[in-house]
Amino acid sequence: MTFQPFLEAITRQIDHTNYGQHPNELYEPIRYLMSLGGKRLRPLLTTLSAHLFTDNWQKSLNPAVAVEVFHNFTLMHDDIMDCAPLRRGQPTVHEKWNANTAILSGDVMLVNAYELLLDIDPILLPLVIRRFNRTAAEVCEGQQLDMNFESRTDVSEEEYVDMIRLKTSVLLGFAMELGGIIAGADEATTQRLYEAGVSMGLGFQLKDDLLDVYGDPEKFGKQVGGDIIANKKTFMLIEALVLAKGEAKEQLHHWLSLEQGTYDIPTKVAAVTGIYSQLGIDKIAEAKAEAYFTNGFAILKNLPVAESRKKPLMDFASYLLGRES
Amino acid sequence: MTFQPFLEAITRQIDHTNYGQHPNELYEPIRYLMSLGGKRLRPLLTTLSAHLFTDNWQKSLNPAVAVEVFHNFTLMHDDIMDCAPLRRGQPTVHEKWNANTAILSGDVMLVNAYELLLDIDPILLPLVIRRFNRTAAEVCEGQQLDMNFESRTDVSEEEYVDMIRLKTSVLLGFAMELGGIIAGADEATTQRLYEAGVSMGLGFQLKDDLLDVYGDPEKFGKQVGGDIIANKKTFMLIEALVLAKGEAKEQLHHWLSLEQGTYDIPTKVAAVTGIYSQLGIDKIAEAKAEAYFTNGFAILKNLPVAESRKKPLMDFASYLLGRES
Repeated sequence: MTFQPFLEAITRQIDHTNYGQHPNELYEPIRYLMSLGGKRLRPLLTTLSAHLFTDNWQKSLNPAVAVEVFHNFTLMHDDIMDCAPLRRGQPTVHEKWNANTAILSGDVMLVNAYELLLDIDPILLPLVIRRFNRTAAEVCEGQQLDMNFESRTDVSEEEYVDMIRLKTSVLLGFAMELGGIIAGADEATTQRLYEAGVSMGLGFQLKDDLLDVYGDPEKFGKQVGGDIIANKKTFMLIEALVLAKGEAKEQLHHWLSLEQGTYDIPTKVAAVTGIYSQLGIDKIAEAKAEAYFTNGFAILKNLPVAESRKKPLMDFASYLLGRES
Repeated sequence: MTFQPFLEAITRQIDHTNYGQHPNELYEPIRYLMSLGGKRLRPLLTTLSAHLFTDNWQKSLNPAVAVEVFHNFTLMHDDIMDCAPLRRGQPTVHEKWNANTAILSGDVMLVNAYELLLDIDPILLPLVIRRFNRTAAEVCEGQQLDMNFESRTDVSEEEYVDMIRLKTSVLLGFAMELGGIIAGADEATTQRLYEAGVSMGLGFQLKDDLLDVYGDPEKFGKQVGGDIIANKKTFMLIEALVLAKGEAKEQLHHWLSLEQGTYDIPTKVAAVTGIYSQLGIDKIAEAKAEAYFTNGFAILKNLPVAESRKKPLMDFASYLLGRES
């Protein structure tokens, strides 16, 4: 994989990042969560985007880690809000320690992200902080919308896409834009990178929704069917609620209406998955995810940059589209 | 009061600050908490410190509000951790809404603080963000230490002072330093402002501990005796545990050992307050608070700045020392 050297550099950089020392109760949860791994998607996008314009993409490493630290901060706090017991197969911070620790360690992680962002040319700092602030606020807005959707039954596809754009995609867009800014790309180009990242981010999330239903339990890492069990208003469910007629509609509403604990979980997962398949939701979601990725690819292809410079980023984008976990 | 025009400008600036709009569930709690008022101590220190060096102290208004927004962010999250039902006599955010809302609105408040800080000369931004990051991390460290102290019975006075330095004083120091930086003071001078702020911050917190025991319930705003009821390891209690001998020591340990709900609250408050008075803890705390303020005053007096420029800041510092609420 042509993006392997970038991933290795990011892993080393994260391993060497000092989040703080004393008191240990505050900083240990940060080291714990950051050590659980993950795809390192966002810092990869930053460094791969910097590489489009400079051989010295290594100068984007600390800002790239800033984006990863920010992302993990949102995970630490979201996991409290969602009462999630596991993250990457390990106990979440609020489970391993407690909610107060997860709140406070998360807070200092956000500060850490700003500190790591300082490792850029000072002339770029006002722009980078302003763009990061906007992105960070939007990620919070997306999380709030996601929580609002829990108590609603009338979420439209448009509202859903707007929510995942805020909660997930804008950070991928910013990660790419940031790499471009650091490598000295002009504003029109960094704007294109942002758009490519947002588009691929939408595809990434739709693919995630799809894998949550159709993923291979051996590869997916999370519980397959988790969204169905939780009645989570994903693209799959929203689309099914629009398309289902007659008995399929009746069946779907029946499963949605049951209280947790009053039904057999594998039966519900199988039934709802069956309805999705019958309605062709899997094909629709797959096609939609691909369309967003295709749009992102097209933006990247049109960038006036040598193909050899684009290759690692394009390879990584293809890997994301084809991923099974 | 010579600092009145500064307070009025800050109040107007806060009233006109836009924290964000959509979704309302995210931003309404911020407007709510910021509208509850308070002494506006920190932004006053920023603007009054800027006024030491420039007539155009108004240019420090947005950064001053940044410090106030940051402070209120810490209150929003601390109140969750402390299960506090009231803040400034009104329901806390997690009580009025819920803990998830308080977590997420708090997060976006911290982002808001960074955004407000951007309203300075870009050349100053790297320094200001770096100093703000350091301060913000230290405030989190102080809160973590404060929580650690809850389960300990052997907290020394030195450890306590180090905790309140982090949790409270460094932000007052930064508020003053920030005013100086924005107004163009040199590094040696802004360092002195920081030290003055930290010293007065220590005095401020000791005064707070004192008022919590000896304050006039009509003026104090919080429940007088709250720290005693909660067995909070304040300066008063730590000092009393060192000084108490014989029957006073026995009595003090007796009241500390009782579970909440097994005793009459006013009786405990009166008994512990009596022990403090008997040991002269009130005088010791008063003298110590004054000493910290005197140190802060001395630093300010030594600044090579016209007396007329210092007057509003000195008046405000005197008001803080003499306050009864």
